[in-house]
Amino acid sequence: MANSVGNIYKFTVWGQSHAPQIGVTIEGLPAGTYIDQERLQSFLDRRRPGQNKYSTTRKESDTAVFAAGLNDASVTVGAPVTAYIVNSNTRSSDYEELKYVPRPGHADYPAMARFGEARDFAGGGQFSGRLTAPICIAGGIALQILEKRGITVTARPVMIGGETEEKKMLEAIEKARSECDSVGGIVECVIEGMPAGVGEPMFDGIENRIAQLVFGIPAVKGIEFGNGFRCAALRGSENNDPFVISDGRVSTLSNNHGGILGGMTSSMPIVFRAAFKPTPSIASEQRSVNIKTGENVSLRIRGRHDPCIVLRAVPVVEAAAAAALLDELYMCGNCRL
Amino acid sequence: MANSVGNIYKFTVWGQSHAPQIGVTIEGLPAGTYIDQERLQSFLDRRRPGQNKYSTTRKESDTAVFAAGLNDASVTVGAPVTAYIVNSNTRSSDYEELKYVPRPGHADYPAMARFGEARDFAGGGQFSGRLTAPICIAGGIALQILEKRGITVTARPVMIGGETEEKKMLEAIEKARSECDSVGGIVECVIEGMPAGVGEPMFDGIENRIAQLVFGIPAVKGIEFGNGFRCAALRGSENNDPFVISDGRVSTLSNNHGGILGGMTSSMPIVFRAAFKPTPSIASEQRSVNIKTGENVSLRIRGRHDPCIVLRAVPVVEAAAAAALLDELYMCGNCRL
Amino acid sequence: MANSVGNIYKFTVWGQSHAPQIGVTIEGLPAGTYIDQERLQSFLDRRRPGQNKYSTTRKESDTAVFAAGLNDASVTVGAPVTAYIVNSNTRSSDYEELKYVPRPGHADYPAMARFGEARDFAGGGQFSGRLTAPICIAGGIALQILEKRGITVTARPVMIGGETEEKKMLEAIEKARSECDSVGGIVECVIEGMPAGVGEPMFDGIENRIAQLVFGIPAVKGIEFGNGFRCAALRGSENNDPFVISDGRVSTLSNNHGGILGGMTSSMPIVFRAAFKPTPSIASEQRSVNIKTGENVSLRIRGRHDPCIVLRAVPVVEAAAAAALLDELYMCGNCRL
Amino acid sequence: MANSVGNIYKFTVWGQSHAPQIGVTIEGLPAGTYIDQERLQSFLDRRRPGQNKYSTTRKESDTAVFAAGLNDASVTVGAPVTAYIVNSNTRSSDYEELKYVPRPGHADYPAMARFGEARDFAGGGQFSGRLTAPICIAGGIALQILEKRGITVTARPVMIGGETEEKKMLEAIEKARSECDSVGGIVECVIEGMPAGVGEPMFDGIENRIAQLVFGIPAVKGIEFGNGFRCAALRGSENNDPFVISDGRVSTLSNNHGGILGGMTSSMPIVFRAAFKPTPSIASEQRSVNIKTGENVSLRIRGRHDPCIVLRAVPVVEAAAAAALLDELYMCGNCRL
Repeated sequence: MANSVGNIYKFTVWGQSHAPQIGVTIEGLPAGTYIDQERLQSFLDRRRPGQNKYSTTRKESDTAVFAAGLNDASVTVGAPVTAYIVNSNTRSSDYEELKYVPRPGHADYPAMARFGEARDFAGGGQFSGRLTAPICIAGGIALQILEKRGITVTARPVMIGGETEEKKMLEAIEKARSECDSVGGIVECVIEGMPAGVGEPMFDGIENRIAQLVFGIPAVKGIEFGNGFRCAALRGSENNDPFVISDGRVSTLSNNHGGILGGMTSSMPIVFRAAFKPTPSIASEQRSVNIKTGENVSLRIRGRHDPCIVLRAVPVVEAAAAAALLDELYMCGNCRL
Repeated sequence: MANSVGNIYKFTVWGQSHAPQIGVTIEGLPAGTYIDQERLQSFLDRRRPGQNKYSTTRKESDTAVFAAGLNDASVTVGAPVTAYIVNSNTRSSDYEELKYVPRPGHADYPAMARFGEARDFAGGGQFSGRLTAPICIAGGIALQILEKRGITVTARPVMIGGETEEKKMLEAIEKARSECDSVGGIVECVIEGMPAGVGEPMFDGIENRIAQLVFGIPAVKGIEFGNGFRCAALRGSENNDPFVISDGRVSTLSNNHGGILGGMTSSMPIVFRAAFKPTPSIASEQRSVNIKTGENVSLRIRGRHDPCIVLRAVPVVEAAAAAALLDELYMCGNCRL
Repeated sequence: MANSVGNIYKFTVWGQSHAPQIGVTIEGLPAGTYIDQERLQSFLDRRRPGQNKYSTTRKESDTAVFAAGLNDASVTVGAPVTAYIVNSNTRSSDYEELKYVPRPGHADYPAMARFGEARDFAGGGQFSGRLTAPICIAGGIALQILEKRGITVTARPVMIGGETEEKKMLEAIEKARSECDSVGGIVECVIEGMPAGVGEPMFDGIENRIAQLVFGIPAVKGIEFGNGFRCAALRGSENNDPFVISDGRVSTLSNNHGGILGGMTSSMPIVFRAAFKPTPSIASEQRSVNIKTGENVSLRIRGRHDPCIVLRAVPVVEAAAAAALLDELYMCGNCRL
Repeated sequence: MANSVGNIYKFTVWGQSHAPQIGVTIEGLPAGTYIDQERLQSFLDRRRPGQNKYSTTRKESDTAVFAAGLNDASVTVGAPVTAYIVNSNTRSSDYEELKYVPRPGHADYPAMARFGEARDFAGGGQFSGRLTAPICIAGGIALQILEKRGITVTARPVMIGGETEEKKMLEAIEKARSECDSVGGIVECVIEGMPAGVGEPMFDGIENRIAQLVFGIPAVKGIEFGNGFRCAALRGSENNDPFVISDGRVSTLSNNHGGILGGMTSSMPIVFRAAFKPTPSIASEQRSVNIKTGENVSLRIRGRHDPCIVLRAVPVVEAAAAAALLDELYMCGNCRL
């Protein structure tokens, strides 16, 4: 539980921001699966900071090293696959003063309540966005397997700081940075090529599972599929997607259902959107408390932080969706008969 | 998997709309827990159709009968608790013509692809909204346990058919019904009294778990916590909630985070909203296909359907949230030390 | 956990000896699976008491009723299957005096420590051998599916009261009964027809899984596969089974490994033995304690009890093995590629 | 599944004999738990080969390195704990000829059937006894936690090569080695200090869980609790353990039940025995087949192998038992109320 997810394609994410390593252990990869490590690394690099001026200047090489589960460093042997990334460039001293002063919008305060003095607060500990790198390893491998089955997963930002046009989105980030502030946004993800009828009923449907994984990405505060929240202002006659058949192939004339009906795929593209809150680490002064002294204090967060994590979150959303869908494919009764 | 959810307070929902029974088997209830069956039944009655003119005229008595797990029909013995509801008033003949013609917006088409001829299509089978009754049994019991710990769970509709004011919401339903149509809406749920630090990291956090359960309610297409999708237009300086301390008690001046940080409770009220699509069963003519003959057809759905399921969904949302939170409480490390 | 077992073919046993019902909820049955209810009932009847003079005279009709998951009461629809047995002929008054006096060899004392006053002590509550009936439902269905794949599961008693010859075994039971005593024994189970390579590594291998299920049968105190405990006096040169190939088919010249190597099937017959302790409920006087008064007491157990449960346990062992193996087959990577 | 075990104290073992690393990821360790790494290493050293003349001469340093989950390399932070051992001294060339020739008594043949050409056959791959080192890490940590609660776990060999007296056991090993053969044996494990009432009903009882873990140790072919297989020749009046009370403390006059009744602890010492088959790797010539050429062949296994793994298995049995019991303690309802 907690750091593990999946029924058959199942992985456990481990590590903290400033631990010696972060990593992932993956069960359920069929023996003989080729993993293209070069492509996987390229995928990880999309998440890596320091790629452009819109992200933190921290340097994280984020090289995935495979500790077990592969033959010739490329083909699965049917055992669990473990990969890790060595943490470096950690400046824990930046965090000393935060030991008793929770940062607004961060996991600090609940973590203090839960783990007490033992919690690892350096760099956000286990709640750091850094832990999305192992998710990208598990999801990046899933993406390669899905692709061989003709399934593609593509995410992109559709809103940042209230803006929906690329140039303006980037300007919103730049403006926030210059004002020691941050902005949130929305990532939309589209999956094409899924056959119909995949997804378990009730609590393990496509929506449930993608939601479970996507809410594992720090800063996500909402998710919607197809028309999502727009449904609340629609009528059934508007929202229902008529079925049509052509050359024996069933499809729908519109895709308000976002490719999912009853938790299962309809064969139409799966479409979902995830809402990200603005990065809580901002340089401007904020109110907080010192839980040791019991005093109200003012806090100024130091360190190197992203003014917007939405851009870097794009591959993470793809990874989460891919891992969820591969597991659903493996669970699907059709596949195991 | 699929019909089971939870790690410690864990339940399995079973049954189909027209099966002899629907029911639920619950594991993890501590021995000696008193279950107030009268209150539980009152809770179930809130979900039951035919309560007012805004829901279907089908009659479902929905009486929960306990088959096992209780002594004197009221106190748990430490074994799994199984309760069931006898299905009656089923008119399967209404559904014969739907065997090969999927209803737009329903699970029919993916279910055909997944289960083939064997699927139970009468009344929506296992995808029927009727299966939310067993969720209400599991959740209703959880609510009683939470209440003893001073935790309350309260949901209400905040939008129906685009309207946000009670009178107008009901008018929107009535208007949709009179026009053989349906409307969707949004249910907001507030949980008060949760201590800080509850919730597992990463994939078993409060948001992940509530989302997994809430997407188990048919028709839900989106969920957001706290500011949710509004975050996309906000800055960190606006969205961060400042901490303050007063009489040794830490709280936040605002609650944009909806009571959850890093997947864990902050002790502030948990706030989430779930978006429901308009009931897909509408009486007006719709386009569909006959998957046996391969022809495009027009479909008119008969039977007795809700023009809006949002009102009846309110207790179901409470039940889903309560079951999720009780399980998180049981999992919580603080509790097991 | 606890009352649930399996990864894909997964079932949850519920009920207590004197609850209104006992039953089982099964997930993972593929849609379209025909269940021969008549054969299933015949299988259950093998476990039922009162079949011959060697078992208790209690009458339990043990008729399995399907509450959900089937179409036309015979074909799975792809939803969980729930079946129950109505408890009747319960004489709870027999047990009143046992509330504070644990029966030697029974679960009573640990159950008191665990569940306190709330425990259901009538008829052994959730620890009653009666709960093996739902195991037989889940296992009996598994047996039918395995049989269609050419896999047979056959158990038989190989020792009772120290005797290994049928006539003497029955005499040992009869003699024990006449002396108000009971006897234990060993059941051997042979599974033929399993293909090679089935079974998950490490903790979910064939041995692990069969053991997990078989120890769920009350009174089992040991299990061994192939040569089992005899291995302790053997050399590798004696215990290793040489491989031979004939007409392209690999087999072993002997079967000391009992069909399992590295937790996986070798295609040779799977052979295991389970040791059953003598029925702890004996009519002769025994020493015990009254945990309420804190006094040492002498106890004479009333009621109708089996002088030996080994005969009735035979189909239960088959059921446990079948459920374990079907789940392993479903989990097997070969099957899902 | 497969390489993961446990509900709350849950760990995943990963690695193959000749992979870069072997390791374990542990979830469920409460924050603030001190891990004495020096003692843990001493515990691991008991399993390590080359300690005396009775084991293989291979050198494995088996140093556990903690990659994540600890602060100051000694206190858990509430995140998963990952530890690994770097593999070295691997001579894969020893195994080239075994690619298509399964070794009698080994997992080779089922692994070929299951994983095909992709399987990692060097050093036994994921089926190597080497994978018991990570089990010892997870179990060794559990032992430290249990000890703080006054619970001790002690295993010892009670039979080797048919001998039951220490000097003769060692002679049996020495004799087997000198004759290019191997011997099996039995390890007995005693756990003292467990409170009464721990253990989940039915499939997650103490016996089920210990069995599931112990069968995860390569070469184990049987397990029995208390009187175990001896029960088959006993009567209830002999096997039942009378309860007595003294100074308010309940105990049994004998311990034929091995500390477990109904899957739960009775507070008497838990006693179980595990049967180990003779090491299958023996230097003398054996019959096998070449599955590629389809020919019967004769095989002589090279490399450095233990003439008896029973001595080295002793700490592994302790580790498996400790991990099982700690998980049961955490699951126990008493603890979570």
